Amino acid sequence: MGFEHLKGFRDIFPEDAQVRLELFSKMEDVASRFGFAPIEYPSVEPLDLFKIKSGDELVKQTFSFKDKGDREVTLIPEATPSTVRLLTSRKEISRPVRWYSMPKLWRYEEPQSGRLREHVQFNADIFGSDSIYADAEIIGLATKILDGLGLKEEYEIRLNDRNLMNNILGNIGISNTPAALSIIDHYGKVDNDTLLSEMSDQGIDDEQAESVIKLLGNNLNPPDLMDFLSSLIFMDDKTIENVNRLEDTYTLLKKYTDAKIVVSLSTVRGLGYYTGIVFEGFDRKGELRAIFGGGRYDNLSKLLSEQSIPAVGFGMGDAVLEILLKRTNRWKAEQRRKKYAVCCSTKKLADRCIDLALELRDLGASAISDLNNRSLSAQLKNASSNDCDYAVIIGEADIKSGKVTLRTLRTGEQSQISIEELVKAVRNDHI
Amino acid sequence: MGFEHLKGFRDIFPEDAQVRLELFSKMEDVASRFGFAPIEYPSVEPLDLFKIKSGDELVKQTFSFKDKGDREVTLIPEATPSTVRLLTSRKEISRPVRWYSMPKLWRYEEPQSGRLREHVQFNADIFGSDSIYADAEIIGLATKILDGLGLKEEYEIRLNDRNLMNNILGNIGISNTPAALSIIDHYGKVDNDTLLSEMSDQGIDDEQAESVIKLLGNNLNPPDLMDFLSSLIFMDDKTIENVNRLEDTYTLLKKYTDAKIVVSLSTVRGLGYYTGIVFEGFDRKGELRAIFGGGRYDNLSKLLSEQSIPAVGFGMGDAVLEILLKRTNRWKAEQRRKKYAVCCSTKKLADRCIDLALELRDLGASAISDLNNRSLSAQLKNASSNDCDYAVIIGEADIKSGKVTLRTLRTGEQSQISIEELVKAVRNDHI
Repeated sequence: MGFEHLKGFRDIFPEDAQVRLELFSKMEDVASRFGFAPIEYPSVEPLDLFKIKSGDELVKQTFSFKDKGDREVTLIPEATPSTVRLLTSRKEISRPVRWYSMPKLWRYEEPQSGRLREHVQFNADIFGSDSIYADAEIIGLATKILDGLGLKEEYEIRLNDRNLMNNILGNIGISNTPAALSIIDHYGKVDNDTLLSEMSDQGIDDEQAESVIKLLGNNLNPPDLMDFLSSLIFMDDKTIENVNRLEDTYTLLKKYTDAKIVVSLSTVRGLGYYTGIVFEGFDRKGELRAIFGGGRYDNLSKLLSEQSIPAVGFGMGDAVLEILLKRTNRWKAEQRRKKYAVCCSTKKLADRCIDLALELRDLGASAISDLNNRSLSAQLKNASSNDCDYAVIIGEADIKSGKVTLRTLRTGEQSQISIEELVKAVRNDHI
Repeated sequence: MGFEHLKGFRDIFPEDAQVRLELFSKMEDVASRFGFAPIEYPSVEPLDLFKIKSGDELVKQTFSFKDKGDREVTLIPEATPSTVRLLTSRKEISRPVRWYSMPKLWRYEEPQSGRLREHVQFNADIFGSDSIYADAEIIGLATKILDGLGLKEEYEIRLNDRNLMNNILGNIGISNTPAALSIIDHYGKVDNDTLLSEMSDQGIDDEQAESVIKLLGNNLNPPDLMDFLSSLIFMDDKTIENVNRLEDTYTLLKKYTDAKIVVSLSTVRGLGYYTGIVFEGFDRKGELRAIFGGGRYDNLSKLLSEQSIPAVGFGMGDAVLEILLKRTNRWKAEQRRKKYAVCCSTKKLADRCIDLALELRDLGASAISDLNNRSLSAQLKNASSNDCDYAVIIGEADIKSGKVTLRTLRTGEQSQISIEELVKAVRNDHI
């Protein structure tokens, strides 16, 4: 027999689950400092909620099905539509408002490194501001999370702006900008000849296509963007305004992080619904998928409700982040409390072990006592394999003297210690 | 237009989501003190994993479907099968082992109070011990969670033992014990005449059925169980042994909690797979569904693998617990950090507001600054509706003097304070 998990899903054992708990808790901690409040929403939603944003194409990549009430439903593939639903369902919410959530998301796709069928994604959005302050604040939140994980030197932020791209493409003479943007989104994944032929298929002539490709592939220092563009294309007032906005956002963002920030004109993010700044975080070695990604989407609330609410947000999945943290030797449980195994030298002391374990737990330690009336050596062996730091051994003689033996399991060192001393040491360790 | 969540699902806004985060974190804290390690598993599993334990009947009540690869899969309706799969997939895990998890679970049932189609359940299991120490430890964990939430006076634990019930039913002369136990499981939900006719349908004669019903409905003080049973039925050695085990477990459990503990012979828990102690926690007013429930299931691992591993565990859902905490006025966010709105008196000070907000965040506070270049009064209004405790107002004159205005939003009191004093106050508040 034997059952296995489905392809693209994960069984997560304590050594990883513990690190993940800390990771999620650190994300929540940074979000809370930034004044972001948590929300939750269902893992199963009407499929239409996602179709309206992403079109029928998306359906192929969802875990969608008919439920037993014949409703077309889906495991949620992304966080934004539900988040916007919550926002628009309450008219009284004072804006701007900062929200975050940590849902599980599902995509029916071929599993790859960093891309699973089920993953947990940290999501954050600011609703009700169309300013560069909101843009910088949301990207700043992403960077503070990564910087707090010690990754400051390990990643770079790539900035771009969909309005800027639309204007640039217009100035080059391309009218079908959505098609051009989808093709630009393939940059780096396919070679340039393929890009050229894709553009040709969309009626973009070779000269225009060449002009576009010249813009891509450079990771620009943001203050150099104006000069770079001026040397290649005609700059109208709108384009200049777009560049200024992006550079101003960059200046604000520098307040939040020392991480590397570039402008990348090939970073357009596939989804059509972005309306302003778009951004992605990548490992600086360029080996992994995006660590986070997001942008401004001022029109989505109008699609889902009668309200028009500017919005900017991002998602940061657990899978790529785990790979990056492991690769840089940062995948470690740091906040684990000290763990004690209370062992008894004879079976009749088992009750005393429970009492002491309960006392140590009340003091803030993690403590276990034997459950199987085993020999002392078996208890000590179990203590080590259960990842305990210390064994506290209660012997018959100890009962009279009020002392126990405290053994450091890693070194094997041990000493006699009074219960009072033990309590004091444990309390100091955990307060 | 307007989209709504599906029936039996929930949108959870910050005022509740914040309390839930704290609730889940308290559960994790107690579990960690008890030496329980976290695990995670998929939300989607092969349907067979649940059929083997609970039979085809369960399928009707699951969110099961064929995925796009034509696999029969389901949203997980319970935690135990996946947990056992993780355990049996690694032969090297030293036992006894204590594990917990906090999955979302789904049931396709008619939603009722405390019973939703999607809920979060805290689950804990001990594998590798068949002793009363393990039984007491697992129930003790449930009680420590509830006691830690301040609910000590609000709930009672109902104990029973499936072996005891099997022996009692045998001594009464009933051979089809599984059928009798399913009927006993209806006790309190239907009237006694219905029970009698259900038993009659299963070939249990009226005298036997009357004997069974006499046993039910009493919440016994556990030390009185032996006398109670002796007065009603024949007590063979096995039955006496069962009673002694239950009373010994009770004695151990008293070490963990002062909550009310009773023996309830009608508490048999429907599922056939329990093999020893069974238990449930109920609000003492008897208005709600079970707060938690579980028991010993020594045979499940054998069904899912080649290994036979004794096990005892429980689940505690979020829905009933939320109702109980709200009813007893305990549904409050307690650990919320102080929240500051950094406001600027003129637009050109916006950058300084960001700087100060970032500094306050680094000190451990929650801080927001204005994103929309609004007037000071609009900023202050937004601060209040965003649940801020304080406003820190930066004025032009303040820049020179190095002072800011600190306003307590609840009272409207305010005073001039130097940045250094502010930093010191915030740091003291958060360390």
